[in-house]
Parts: sequence; C-alpha cells; structure tokens
Amino acid sequence: MEKQYLRQLLTKLFDRSISIEQALEKLKHLPFEDLGFASIDHHRPLRKGYPEVIFCQNKTPQQVVAIALSQVKHGETVFGTRANVKVLDAVNAGVAGVEVDETARCFWKKSKTWKKHRTEGSIVICSAGTADLPVVAEAQRTVEILGHTPRMLKDVGIAGIHRLFSYREILHTASVIIAIAGMEGALPSVIAGYVACPVIGVPTSVGYGSHLGGMVPLFAMLNSCASGLTVVNIDNGFGAACAAVAMVNIKG
Amino acid sequence: MEKQYLRQLLTKLFDRSISIEQALEKLKHLPFEDLGFASIDHHRPLRKGYPEVIFCQNKTPQQVVAIALSQVKHGETVFGTRANVKVLDAVNAGVAGVEVDETARCFWKKSKTWKKHRTEGSIVICSAGTADLPVVAEAQRTVEILGHTPRMLKDVGIAGIHRLFSYREILHTASVIIAIAGMEGALPSVIAGYVACPVIGVPTSVGYGSHLGGMVPLFAMLNSCASGLTVVNIDNGFGAACAAVAMVNIKG
Amino acid sequence: MEKQYLRQLLTKLFDRSISIEQALEKLKHLPFEDLGFASIDHHRPLRKGYPEVIFCQNKTPQQVVAIALSQVKHGETVFGTRANVKVLDAVNAGVAGVEVDETARCFWKKSKTWKKHRTEGSIVICSAGTADLPVVAEAQRTVEILGHTPRMLKDVGIAGIHRLFSYREILHTASVIIAIAGMEGALPSVIAGYVACPVIGVPTSVGYGSHLGGMVPLFAMLNSCASGLTVVNIDNGFGAACAAVAMVNIKG
Amino acid sequence: MEKQYLRQLLTKLFDRSISIEQALEKLKHLPFEDLGFASIDHHRPLRKGYPEVIFCQNKTPQQVVAIALSQVKHGETVFGTRANVKVLDAVNAGVAGVEVDETARCFWKKSKTWKKHRTEGSIVICSAGTADLPVVAEAQRTVEILGHTPRMLKDVGIAGIHRLFSYREILHTASVIIAIAGMEGALPSVIAGYVACPVIGVPTSVGYGSHLGGMVPLFAMLNSCASGLTVVNIDNGFGAACAAVAMVNIKG
Amino acid sequence: MEKQYLRQLLTKLFDRSISIEQALEKLKHLPFEDLGFASIDHHRPLRKGYPEVIFCQNKTPQQVVAIALSQVKHGETVFGTRANVKVLDAVNAGVAGVEVDETARCFWKKSKTWKKHRTEGSIVICSAGTADLPVVAEAQRTVEILGHTPRMLKDVGIAGIHRLFSYREILHTASVIIAIAGMEGALPSVIAGYVACPVIGVPTSVGYGSHLGGMVPLFAMLNSCASGLTVVNIDNGFGAACAAVAMVNIKG
Amino acid sequence: MEKQYLRQLLTKLFDRSISIEQALEKLKHLPFEDLGFASIDHHRPLRKGYPEVIFCQNKTPQQVVAIALSQVKHGETVFGTRANVKVLDAVNAGVAGVEVDETARCFWKKSKTWKKHRTEGSIVICSAGTADLPVVAEAQRTVEILGHTPRMLKDVGIAGIHRLFSYREILHTASVIIAIAGMEGALPSVIAGYVACPVIGVPTSVGYGSHLGGMVPLFAMLNSCASGLTVVNIDNGFGAACAAVAMVNIKG
Amino acid sequence: MEKQYLRQLLTKLFDRSISIEQALEKLKHLPFEDLGFASIDHHRPLRKGYPEVIFCQNKTPQQVVAIALSQVKHGETVFGTRANVKVLDAVNAGVAGVEVDETARCFWKKSKTWKKHRTEGSIVICSAGTADLPVVAEAQRTVEILGHTPRMLKDVGIAGIHRLFSYREILHTASVIIAIAGMEGALPSVIAGYVACPVIGVPTSVGYGSHLGGMVPLFAMLNSCASGLTVVNIDNGFGAACAAVAMVNIKG
Amino acid sequence: MEKQYLRQLLTKLFDRSISIEQALEKLKHLPFEDLGFASIDHHRPLRKGYPEVIFCQNKTPQQVVAIALSQVKHGETVFGTRANVKVLDAVNAGVAGVEVDETARCFWKKSKTWKKHRTEGSIVICSAGTADLPVVAEAQRTVEILGHTPRMLKDVGIAGIHRLFSYREILHTASVIIAIAGMEGALPSVIAGYVACPVIGVPTSVGYGSHLGGMVPLFAMLNSCASGLTVVNIDNGFGAACAAVAMVNIKG
Repeated sequence: MEKQYLRQLLTKLFDRSISIEQALEKLKHLPFEDLGFASIDHHRPLRKGYPEVIFCQNKTPQQVVAIALSQVKHGETVFGTRANVKVLDAVNAGVAGVEVDETARCFWKKSKTWKKHRTEGSIVICSAGTADLPVVAEAQRTVEILGHTPRMLKDVGIAGIHRLFSYREILHTASVIIAIAGMEGALPSVIAGYVACPVIGVPTSVGYGSHLGGMVPLFAMLNSCASGLTVVNIDNGFGAACAAVAMVNIKG
Repeated sequence: MEKQYLRQLLTKLFDRSISIEQALEKLKHLPFEDLGFASIDHHRPLRKGYPEVIFCQNKTPQQVVAIALSQVKHGETVFGTRANVKVLDAVNAGVAGVEVDETARCFWKKSKTWKKHRTEGSIVICSAGTADLPVVAEAQRTVEILGHTPRMLKDVGIAGIHRLFSYREILHTASVIIAIAGMEGALPSVIAGYVACPVIGVPTSVGYGSHLGGMVPLFAMLNSCASGLTVVNIDNGFGAACAAVAMVNIKG
Repeated sequence: MEKQYLRQLLTKLFDRSISIEQALEKLKHLPFEDLGFASIDHHRPLRKGYPEVIFCQNKTPQQVVAIALSQVKHGETVFGTRANVKVLDAVNAGVAGVEVDETARCFWKKSKTWKKHRTEGSIVICSAGTADLPVVAEAQRTVEILGHTPRMLKDVGIAGIHRLFSYREILHTASVIIAIAGMEGALPSVIAGYVACPVIGVPTSVGYGSHLGGMVPLFAMLNSCASGLTVVNIDNGFGAACAAVAMVNIKG
Repeated sequence: MEKQYLRQLLTKLFDRSISIEQALEKLKHLPFEDLGFASIDHHRPLRKGYPEVIFCQNKTPQQVVAIALSQVKHGETVFGTRANVKVLDAVNAGVAGVEVDETARCFWKKSKTWKKHRTEGSIVICSAGTADLPVVAEAQRTVEILGHTPRMLKDVGIAGIHRLFSYREILHTASVIIAIAGMEGALPSVIAGYVACPVIGVPTSVGYGSHLGGMVPLFAMLNSCASGLTVVNIDNGFGAACAAVAMVNIKG
Repeated sequence: MEKQYLRQLLTKLFDRSISIEQALEKLKHLPFEDLGFASIDHHRPLRKGYPEVIFCQNKTPQQVVAIALSQVKHGETVFGTRANVKVLDAVNAGVAGVEVDETARCFWKKSKTWKKHRTEGSIVICSAGTADLPVVAEAQRTVEILGHTPRMLKDVGIAGIHRLFSYREILHTASVIIAIAGMEGALPSVIAGYVACPVIGVPTSVGYGSHLGGMVPLFAMLNSCASGLTVVNIDNGFGAACAAVAMVNIKG
Repeated sequence: MEKQYLRQLLTKLFDRSISIEQALEKLKHLPFEDLGFASIDHHRPLRKGYPEVIFCQNKTPQQVVAIALSQVKHGETVFGTRANVKVLDAVNAGVAGVEVDETARCFWKKSKTWKKHRTEGSIVICSAGTADLPVVAEAQRTVEILGHTPRMLKDVGIAGIHRLFSYREILHTASVIIAIAGMEGALPSVIAGYVACPVIGVPTSVGYGSHLGGMVPLFAMLNSCASGLTVVNIDNGFGAACAAVAMVNIKG
Repeated sequence: MEKQYLRQLLTKLFDRSISIEQALEKLKHLPFEDLGFASIDHHRPLRKGYPEVIFCQNKTPQQVVAIALSQVKHGETVFGTRANVKVLDAVNAGVAGVEVDETARCFWKKSKTWKKHRTEGSIVICSAGTADLPVVAEAQRTVEILGHTPRMLKDVGIAGIHRLFSYREILHTASVIIAIAGMEGALPSVIAGYVACPVIGVPTSVGYGSHLGGMVPLFAMLNSCASGLTVVNIDNGFGAACAAVAMVNIKG
Repeated sequence: MEKQYLRQLLTKLFDRSISIEQALEKLKHLPFEDLGFASIDHHRPLRKGYPEVIFCQNKTPQQVVAIALSQVKHGETVFGTRANVKVLDAVNAGVAGVEVDETARCFWKKSKTWKKHRTEGSIVICSAGTADLPVVAEAQRTVEILGHTPRMLKDVGIAGIHRLFSYREILHTASVIIAIAGMEGALPSVIAGYVACPVIGVPTSVGYGSHLGGMVPLFAMLNSCASGLTVVNIDNGFGAACAAVAMVNIKG
C-alpha cells in the first residue's frame, strides 16, 4: 500500500506533474518524518519542557563536571540531581556561577535564556517530618528550575491531622499537589480524599523495621481508596516535580 | 485565640454593630467551615468533579441495586465499576434506563443534570493487546461518565513499535495520555520518552510465569527512565481516568 | 501459697493422718501445677476469660457439630468462627438452640452460666466500607460472646475523614478501639493519632491489584507514625476482639 | 441544617434572648470544637499520656539538641529515642542535667511536673538473649518515662522453656506483658497461650540467614495460635511501651 | 543531512537522470525503510523466521477462530498456543484441516508455502518428569512449526543423573539444548556444565510448598555456576523454542 | 591410571591367568561401576531403603493405575502419594488388593518380599491441630511403608504447652522426632530445645492472613534458636518420613 | 522411675527417718525435675551431646571473654562461633590456651573431660568452591568439638559433576553427609539422589544478582526432587554439624 | 544388557578372538568413557570454548595471584572477573605482562596459543547509560578473550528510542545481540521485537527506589512480549558473553 503510494508520488514527479518541493513536502508527512525524528529530539529539552538533567548517582565527580561544562558551553541550563558531597564540591570548584543545595543533593546554573513560566497554575508540595527533607528539597528545586514557584507545606503529618486542614484554602486552590510521605504513607490518601485537583504521591525510604525501604508507603499510596492520586517511585522527588509541571503546563 | 475572636464577633452581634448575615458570613470563614465540612462533602461529587461511584466488588447484586436506586431517586448520576455478570444482570433488571458495558464491567445512568464538559483538553488512552481490554474499557467508560471523550489507540504494543509512532500527531497534541500495559509494561516508558504531556501508566495483571500478578509492569513503570510518568494500581483503569480528568480540569 | 499447701500435706503424712498412697495421689495433682498444669488448663477458658473456640476452617461439618455437641453436654458455652455455609447449616440442623450470623461466619450457644461482664470499659469497633463487614461482624460477635457490648461505627473511612471526627466524643471516651481497614489501611493510624486509649488495627484482605492479600494495610499499620497502636493478623477480627476484652479486663 | 441551627442561634443572640456566654457555650458543642482542635492538640502530650518524643534517627545532633533545649525552656519533659553515640554526646554536652542510656539509645530529662503514676497495673517485659537488649532497654526506658516501673525478665528464651515457667507467678499477676524476641519469635506465642492478660509482641531484627531482617519473628507473632496477642513493628520497643502504658491507663 | 540526500534524489528523478524504479530502490535503503517498516512488519513472520502466533490465553474461542480463519484466508500458516479445551474444540470445529495437540495446548495448520528448514543444526529438548509434559510439548510443537525436528530426551532428571549421561553423544553433538525442569531446577545447570553449545533453561511451575509457582527453578537457573546458560520465563516453552530456532538460524 | 589397571586386567584374562567371571567381578569394582550405575539404579529402591514412589499430583488417574499395575507385575511394592479422590477411586477399582488412606491421600500395596524392619530406633510424629492431619497422615503412612511403626502424638500444640511435656518420656527416648506445625510453627523449636535426638520440622500450609502459604512456619523453623533441627519443604510429610527412616537406618 | 523416688521419699517421711523440712527441701529439687526441669537443664550440654555454645554475633569482645572465662572456671569446654577478628583477638589475649580458626570464625578450648566419641558413624562434609569456606570450616570445627572427625570433600561442585562421583566410595559408606552450596544450590540434590544415608543441605549466601542472599539455594534444596534431604538455615554450618552429630549418635 | 555385552567381549578376549588393544578400544566406547570423564574435563576449557575463569569475588588478592601464576605456568590463558581494586593491584604487581580493565573489573593474560576466532558471526553489545558501564565492559572483555570482537552501541536507551533505530543496519546484520539495561529494562524487549537474531538480555542493578536491586529489569525481560529473547542473571555480563560466543560458535 505504502509502496503503491510512493510509486505514484515518484511517478508524478517523474512526469513533472508535481514539483520537487511538493514531493518533498508530501514525503515529510510520511513515516518519513522519522527522518526528522533525530533532530526533533535534539530539541527534546524544549519539547519536554525542561532541560536535560544530570543524574549524578553512579557518575564520578569528573564525569559530572565535564558534562556540566559542556552544557554551559552550549548555553544550556545545567541541572544535576542525586549529587553527593564529593560531586557537589567538584561542581562548586569546577563550574563558575553554579548554585548548590546540599539537602536537595542538587546543583544548577540557569542559562541566559532561562525564564520563569507565567505561572498558570500553582504547585503545592506537602510533607510531614524532617526526615523526608532531602526528597522534599529535590522536588522543590526541580519545580523551580522548570520555572515554577512551589508553595511549601512542611509540617502537615497524619499524626496531627488538624495541621493539614488549617491549610485548607491553600489545598483547595492548588492546581497540583505533591504529597511526600514515609512511614505508613497515608498523607497523599488523606489529601486526595479532600481536594479535587490531581495529587502526586511520593513514598520515601524513611522508616525502620518492616518498612521495606519505602515499599510500605509506596503500596499504601497505590491502594488508596481516594481517587485522583497517582504515584512515582520511592524518593523520586525529581519525577514528581516533572510530572507536576507537565500537568500545570497542559494548555486548557 | 480563636475563642477570643469568636467572643468578639458574638459581642458585636449582641451589640448589633453587625447584622446576623454578617456574623453568619464571618463564621463561614472560620474553622467553622469545618461545620460546613460535612455538608460540603455532601456536594463532594460536584467538588471532586465526578459522581459517587459504586465499587461493586464484594457487594451483593441486591446491595448494588439498592444503592443505585437510591441515587436515581436523589437525581444523581449512577456509575458502577467492577460489576460481574450477576451484578450487571441484577442492575439491568432492577434499574430502569441503565446502560451496561460487560467488557468494562461497568454500568451507568446519567442524571438529567449530567453534561459533557467543554473539552479543554483531550485524553488519549493507549493500549497493546486484546487481553488488556477490560482495563481499557473501564478507563474509557470512566472518562466518558466524567464528561470527556477519550481518543482510543488500541493496537500500539512495544513488539511492533512503529505502530505507535504512526500515531505521533495524536500523541503530541494530547493533553494527557493513559498508557495501559501488561507483560513487561514498557509502553508507558516509551511514550513518556516521546511526549511532553503527563502520562499515566496503568499496569495490568495480564501475563503468566514470573509476572507476579501485574507487579512486573507496575515496577517497570515506577522505574521508568522517562520523566513525566506517574502510575496507578494494577488494573486500575478507573483511577487513571479520574486522575486524567483531574489533570485536564486544571484551570490554567 | 503452693508451698503452704505442700507443707500441710507433708505434715499430715508425718502425723500419719494420711497414708503414703494418699499423699502420692495428692501430689499427682500438684507440681503438678506443671503436672496440675493440665488440669488448670481444663479451666483455661475461665482463666483466659473466654470459652474454648471452634476454629471451623479446615474442619468438616460433622467434626464441628461433634465438638459443639460435646461442649453443650459439658455445659460449656459454644462459639465457632470461620464457619462456611455448609458448616452453619450442619450446626443449625444438629445443635438445638444455636444462634448463627452468616456475615460473621460465626455461631454460638451460650451456657446457663454465661453472663454479661459488668462493663468496666467500652469497646468501640470502627470500620470503613461494606467490604470489610465479615471481619467487622466477627469482631463484634466475639466481643459479645466474651460478655461485652461493642459500640459500632461503620462508615468512618479515610476518604471522607470528617465523618470520623463527628464521632469524636465516642472516640475520646472509649476504653479500647478496634480499627478495621483494607485498601491502604490508614484508618487506625489516623485514630491512634487522635485518641489516648489503646487502638488495635485489623488489616483486611479487601482490595485488588498490588494489595498483596492484605499485606499492604498490615504493613501500613505496623509502620504507623502514631503510637499506642498494635496490630493483629489480616482479617483476624476474632483475635482483635480477644485482645480488646483482655485489655478492658485489666484490673486497675 | 447546621447552617439553620447556627442562624437561629445568632438570631437569638441578636434578639438578646440569650447571653453572649450562652451563645459561646452552645457553639462549643458544635463542630466548632474543631476550632478547639488545634489548641487541644497543644495539650496532646497530656491527653495521650506521654510527652512529645524526639525520634533522633535521620536528625543531626544539632537539630536534636535544639529541640531538646526548646522543650526544657517550655518546662516540658524531654525524651529522645534512636539516638546514636554522636547524638548522645551532643545531648550530654548541650543539655544540662540530661540522663542517658547508651544501650537503649535513649536520653531524657524529667520536667518538674513529671510524676510517677500511681501504678494501677504492672507491666512485665520479657526477653530472651543479650542480642535483643537495645530493644528491651528502649521499651524499659519508655515505660519509665511514662511513669511506670516495669518488671524485667531477661533470660526466658524458648530454648530452655522451663526458665519462663519458673516466673509463672509474675506472669499470671501482670496487667500487660511485653514479649520481645528475634530468631523464630515463638516467645510471645508461648506466653500468650499461658496467661490471660494482653501480650504485646515485639519482633527484633536479631538473626541471620533467612531471617529477613526481623520479618520472620514478625510474621510468626502475627500467626500465633494463641489469642490476646497483638504486635508492633520490628525493633519497636518504644511503640510497645506506649501501647502497654495506654492499656494499664484504661480507667475501669 | 537526510533531507539533503532526499532532495538530491528527487531532483535526479525530476531530471530523469534516474528511473522511477531506481528511485524506489534507493528510498528503500533510506530511513525510509521506516516507511517500509510497517510493510516489512507485514512480512515480519518471514523476517523473524516464524509465523504470527495466536496466544490464546485471555481470548474467547470465537476470537481465536476468527483470527485463524483470517490467517488461512491470507494463505498464512496458523499456529496457536495456550489453548484450553474449549478453544481447541472450537478450532477443531471451525478451521478445516487444523491439527491439534491437547497436551501442548497448541493447534496449527501449515500453509502451502510452509517448508522444513534444511536442518543446519539440531535442537535437543531435555526434560525430567511427566508433570512438565505440557511445557515440553509446547516447545516441541513450536520448534516443529518453525521447520526443525527436535530430538526429545524425556526421562533425564537429576535424581538419577546417570540417565542423562547415557545420552552423552546426543548432548555433545547438539547445536542448542532446551532444558526444561521444575522442582529445584538443577537440570539445565548440570547440562550446561557438561556441554559446549548454548543451553536454554525453562523453569516450570510444577512443584508444591515453597516452590513459589516456579520462581525457585527460575532463580536456580539464573544463578547457575555453569556458563553458556540463558533462561526464559516460567513455563515458556514457546519462547525457548523461538530462541533456539533463532540460534540455529545464525548464518555462520 | 585406571587405564593401566584395565590393561593389566585384560592382559591377565588374555593370558588366562584369571577366569572370565573373575574379570567380570573385578570390572564391577571399577569406574565401570558407572556401567553398573544404571543397573544399580535399578536396585535403587533397595539401596535408598524405600520403594519407587508414585507422586500422583499432575498425573491422570489412568497414568497412575498403569504405573501401579506395572509395579505389581514386577513384584514391587506400590506406594502412591498426593492422590486426590479421583485417583484413589481409579486405583481402588483398577489395582486388586490395594489399600487406601483418604486423609493421607496415599495408597499402597505391599509386595511379597516387603517386611518390617527390625526397629532399631523409634520414630515419633508430633503435631498440633486437626488441620495438619493430611500432612501427619502422609508422614505416618510413609514411615509405615518403609517398615517402621511411628509413635503418634497428635494433640501437643504450643498454645497448651503442658500437653507436650506430659509426653516427656516418649520424647526423650525417641530416636528421631518429626514435628509438624502450621500457624507460627513454634512446635519443632520447643521440642528441639528439649530433646537430644534429631528433630525434623515440617511446616504446613495451614493458616490464614499473613501466613504466606506456609512460608511463615517454614522460616520460623529455619531460624530456630534450638539446634539439632533440620527442615523439609512445606507440607512434605513424605520427605520428612524418608529422612527419618534414613536416620534410624544409620548403622552405628 | 521418678515415681519410685517419690514413693521412697514419702516412705522415709512416714517412717519419720527424715523431717518435714528435709522432705520439703528434697521436693524442691524434684517435681522439679519437671520442676527439676531447671536443674536438668544445668546438665543440658551433656544431655544434648554438646557444650553450651557462645554465639558471638551481637556480643562485645568483653562479653565474650567474660563468658568464656566463666566456662573455663567451671571446667566446661568453651566453643564460640560467629566471632569476628576483634572478638578472636580479645579471646586470644584473654583466654589462656584457647585455639582459634579465623576462616571458621570459631574458637575453642577443650575441657579436661572432653573426649572423642567412639566414632560409630562417619560424617562427610561436601562443598564446591572457595567462597563457601567459612561455612564449611564452621561445620568442620563444630563436628570436631562434638567429638567426631569429619571427612572433608572440598572440590565437588556441580559444574564438573564427575569430581563428585570419583568419591563414590566415600559417599556410599558415609553415615551422614553435610552438603554445602551457594549459587543454584544443586549439590545436595545430586548427592541425595545418589546415596541412601541422610543428607543435610546448607545453603550459603555466596552469589550475586538475583541470589537473594542465599534464598535461591535454600529454596532449591527445599524443593529437591531427591528424598532423604533436610535443610538448615543459610550459612548455618554450626546447625548442620549439630544435627549431623545428633544423627550419628542415634543408638541403634 | 551392558553386562551381557561385557561378558561377550571378555569371552572373545579369553578366546583370543580379539586382541587386548581391541578390547581396550571397545571398552573406551562403553560407559567407560566415564573413566575418561575426568581427563576430558581436564580439557574442559577447550571443549567449552573458553579458558577456566577466575571469579575473584570472595577471594583474597593472594589467592587470585596464586591461581593466575599457576595458570601462567601451565601455559594457559588467564582471565579474571569481579576483581576489585585491591585484587587488580595485586595482580598487576604479581603477574608479569597482565592486562587490566578497571571499569570491567577484569584482567587477562593471553597464552601463546590464544588466537582470534575466524569471526563467523558478529556479536553486538547494546546499552543505555553510563551507569551500566561496568557490566558492559565485563561483557566486552569476555567476548574479546573468547576470540571475538564485539560491536559496541553505548547510547541507545529507550528514553530516546530513535537513537537505537539509527543503528538499524548494524542490528539487522548482527548474529547475536547482547542488550544491557537497568531501570525498567525495556531495551532488550524493544530490540527483540525489531530483529530476527537471538537477543540476550542482561538486567543491571542500576536504579533506586523500588528497583529491587535489579529484579525489576530482570522480571521485565523475562516477561517480554517479544520472542527470541533469553536472559541471564543481574549484572552477569560475563555469562551473557559466554552464551553469545556459544551461539556464534554453533557449527551450521
């Protein structure tokens, strides 16, 4: 079939009943666009709405610095996650003008073209205890580098549930809520039962005993009796932030 | 503190320096709203954006019919999920004007006030094989009852990946994509690597051997190397649809 | 005490007011407290505060009826759990005056000496949905046969958390609360964060997908960030009731 | 409905047919008490029967000292758990008059108002080997800071079961028994089959091979064939102590 | 780049310096092949070396018959796996000339163009007991439909290891060996330690107790101390056969 | 080396300095025995101390009868395990003189040469409840067919531990004890802490909730703090019996 | 026997050849045998056939030395397992005449009364690679301290199965075989299929990837298709040795 | 049978109708070859197609050097895997002329007789990110030491799937493809759906959260909906390389 179509097209060109440009145009609307596939991906950061991110775990400080410098050179925004102290030190020493957040294990350097999004929707990040802070900070920094300013609610755990409800106005006017919880992981369920907007649950590996490295809150969130809740991997503050930004970027 | 505020308010009313309506108005903006809490919840279906749903698993046909009839009587839209054949038969016999989808294991009866949303965003539902159809259909029916019309792409599995890319225009213009997959669960990852919009992964329990009842695609999706992907429970087409609608309902 | 008894016995023998054989006979009913251990155990139902219970799972209807009739003959209270329909039918046919609760999968026949405890403490049983009803009913019937009258709160799930708080007075004056929940199992955590009395969490096997047959709520309860919460096995309404009664029976 | 009631009440006040105090009183019996919700929680330590506890795991020594000093300043009793050597050193150096138990990984400083409970019930803590000592000590210190004096039975493992039975009098007169065991976790089952009072099982992470980090004794306790037994998380001596105190505090 | 090449090609055609057929030929060797991707995939059975297979699990008998008839109509070879008795009966009734193997749960109808491969390599299928027979038969039938004739060794379990070694000549001259085992799954390890050719291990779900539905032999094979062994999913006789045929089809 | 030996032997035969029979005899003691390996295996039942056993699970009634009849014909003792009702009926109908135990799911027909072992050691089989009876019976029947007469202690569960100790004399004079337990699986640990002889633990799949199909008692036994305890697979009464007989057959 | 003793005692009292207090005193050391249970346990090492063992894991070097010195003082044989380098150094420094095996992580000092058993049965210990050596050595040292001399076969892995068979005479004349294996854990199965004597499988934690810390060989051994095989916990060389000695000590 | 054959043979020799050498020759073709079994194994490296490999994990640097030197002395090729830095340093210092790859954790020294295979088939190794590099390098070095030269495709992850397809010619002309992936492990599935040759999936332990140490990609690969894919253990680059070489060595 495709082959027939192609033969007809080429025949028309051979017969000069269409021009070269017309043939070219038609072919672009063929699977052909796969040809453009690769180059489109070159623009992938722009298309996906956020810059290429350096996942530092399993990379040496040297490797990280090299990648960052290459990005700086190409005028791109640099953003690194899961960076341990050694990596952060190396980046601090090797990349001029870089900013660092040790708790978030992140670093970044905004390009000249970086700009804040017109905030069409507000992202709220809720969490419970101090132990979840690295994940909370990673989510916060990721949302920021993607051009949004999250509202942080840091002391709203399930053990004193009234604290959560005292923020009811913030919760009810949010566009997306990221709810981060370790232990029994009930916070996202309670929130999703309370609001209408999408809620993204982030289980954390904080706990002990039969906590299974975060599997317990992960499964608790997946089995929530409240709807509108979706979940990302354990400790994946970065992923939650990317998804949240993708949601508020939906063009209504 | 709150108590002081309350006393002052009541004193003003007693002194007639404010009207009853003004006092009432103020109290509504107090924790008092907690008083309204219960009644607000009465309106919860409206607030959350979708009607109260009857989860039929573990309910007898009689129970389901009784609940449905009560909803009909109150002029509410009825929507039931996870209904086996016996339940569907009972509903068909007992609830006049009900509609039924056996594959989706769903039934529904729209209320008079039900109306289609002005579709500000389009929801796409992608799936691979025929075995996932019940989950696909549950997602489809849920999206519909919530007022949206999903675009269905049913034959786009990873084993012949070109089929997926032939729908690239649909994928790139979607507001939210629900990607449903059993087996190795790679479809949502591939899609999330390809588009900018939020992707909701739904693992299914379809498979055999070391499939672990759907745990394998669930974990594969949670560990996706593509960002923008969030996940719901195994076979939870309903939950994915609710989340998708919540996303497209974000007011920009 | 035991020692006093022994000294008296030996004194009698020394005084020859009893024969060697008589002393021997008595001693058999002594140390014997390890030896008498067995006979004490004969009274075990009384000592533990509840009658010997017939766990019907894996027993034939005939076996169950035979045990029940033997207990009736000895003037004991009969109580059977995990009885399927066949067992309940057989018991109904074979044991005169037996009472049956199909939802609870229990049957019982109180002995003449059975009596209600002076209720020194009130037991509250909280649960969420209709799907947990068999476990709820098993807990209720067990508490009752042990002489207490539980207060039932059946519609207090986490998805509409205000319903729970509307019962705050009942919750705050309870002696012990049994909290039964499937799905993500957050209810006991929320309650234990709210009250001072002991809370017993009962995870149920109600759920689907990655619910792991009730493991998810079980682990969620074990990892609760609220204290005062202890847990029993999945679906173990009977065990929770026994523990609750043991708690209210503590002599202050 | 609530709103009608409120309007009537305010109307009466406006009409001066009731006094301000009367209106205030009525409002307190409304959901309004939710207003008091927050402040009640301020008193939560008193209400729950024990002070706010500092869970030191995942906190820096500086953070712990800062929290402790703040509690001292407010005249509250300080109690910290899961404190490693560095934290204990920092607390020792930074908090005057603090007491420390290295085995228990706890520290405490009683406030002036701290007082011993009139012991209405006695708590017994049973354990087997030396390896479980940190968990045993945590339970002991927690019971003590909550105002009770536990009876310690430290050498009563299942491998020499007669040792346990030689304490039969202590066991039979206890109000609550905390049974702590690693390995195969059989101790709580044996005790719960022997006594009438509530037994709280604490599995420990002591073991090797297929011990699964304490999952084996945890599951063994949950599956006990003896009733009256409830369970807390692995190594959770603190939680067991809180539950035990909650039980003996039940007002008959 | 690709685009430049394409323009040049089209220009040549426009200039009639190449023929339509020449242009067509060139385009086939372009990314264009992606265009051909779809149509190539139409020929995918040929390319992969085996026909499109009907995986019957989760399909209704009607669906299976419909697919089979459609394939017959297009002159394709039909091959169905995981067909239960109902499906086999329906196929027998509905597809003229079909062949059926109940043990293998397979059916097939060879097309006119089907032909036996010139057997460049011999495939040996080893198994232990009668319980594994359905998996063994599925592997056998799949190898056959792909044009090869496997050598079957059916009684060579590890419990009487000499039986295996009595076939040493067959084992040492094989091109590929498929080793199928349930229980402890040691057979593939023993064989792979004994021969030089590739060995494909197929764990089966035959066993009881802690067999974990075939996970035990699966993991045993993955952890084999012998090299040259690769593994497929539990009970996946079909997959092992496809891989074996792919191996013997390698053109040296 | 072997080769030298062989050449010498053959040379002696060639020289007629030994007879054919002598050569044959010598060769039997060579690696050659590997030759005899197969035939020895023919005698394997005798060598292992028990007849070839028919594991009926996954076999059709016809297959089982055919195997049994073939064994009868060869004058061998027949013993079948894991036989469901259909298989037992078929065997009863098809094999003259067969004996059947429905609870044990076993059947047997002793050959003429079958004889009771001179009991050099006594095997004791301990178990707790009625639910474990099928496993207990399988162990009992297996011990019997292997020529020993086990002593059965059927009511010695951990929940009333004194019952066990009342059999102390039987326990202390046993050669091997098979201890069968479901639920928390503590019985073998308690026994192994009490006796000096080897104890074989058999976990059973009896339980509910977090019982994991018998994994809980299996792991509890493997983690026993008592030594001298070894374990077989879940529900494997047959395997325990074989091992027990192998132990008492050790020639001192 | 006990009864005879009791009758004699009572007769003496009846005869007034002893006083009441003397009778009381004696009885305290009796029932007491159940009751004297404790004192028997004082002799437990002798009764179980091996000395009290110091399990050093989770003990400080000081604790270990203190226990060892106390045992030396009471003339008991000292034997410690799971001793790390620090413990071994401390023991070397603190306990005169102690012997140490670093690979086995064991130390021992035989008492004056220690003596070799008349070896009524020979214990064979089989293992595969160098990685299992610590477990092998622990088993060896334990067998030795219990008075037996094991035969060691250290290079008989499944990957070159002929090596195993070259020891066939040793295997066939053994009383008990301990088979130690990591990786896929097939060695005990192969041996148990080959010999008639009891085989004790010891899975080790040696492996990588999906080895699950030794769970894979553990489960493989439990699911062995060969009978006569029982299993101990992962890496439990000590337990296997104790069980093996208990087996060869069975008095025929 | 064998015995009859043997007797006839020996009779012929006795009758001198055959020579000693002829008898010897015949016996070599008997099971006797088992005699040669051991010596054949001496040649096992040659037979299996690759040298004896030193698995360094769990070996001391001294042990590794000793084995390597012994191999050098016997003129064998040396190849070591899983060597940490200490081992590599020791080998570098102790084995003259050794080559080392730190990333691959391998070292090797080719013997004089080592030679490159005539490459009858080309092996392609595909991988995604830098984190998988150690596994990729181990596979590469193993393929090389076995005499082949793999084609390396290092940047072809699923998140930018077009990169993979740009190598389509390499993929379609490969004899065997090794596909290495961590995270969600989808790469091998996508490739196996695209090519006809055998694909070997290697899951890696690279990931975080619910990655289960590589279990997630392992299970994803086992459950692939594409055929022709077989799998090796997590991180087992060595095993994949051995299997790949065994495949290309199949003699057509």
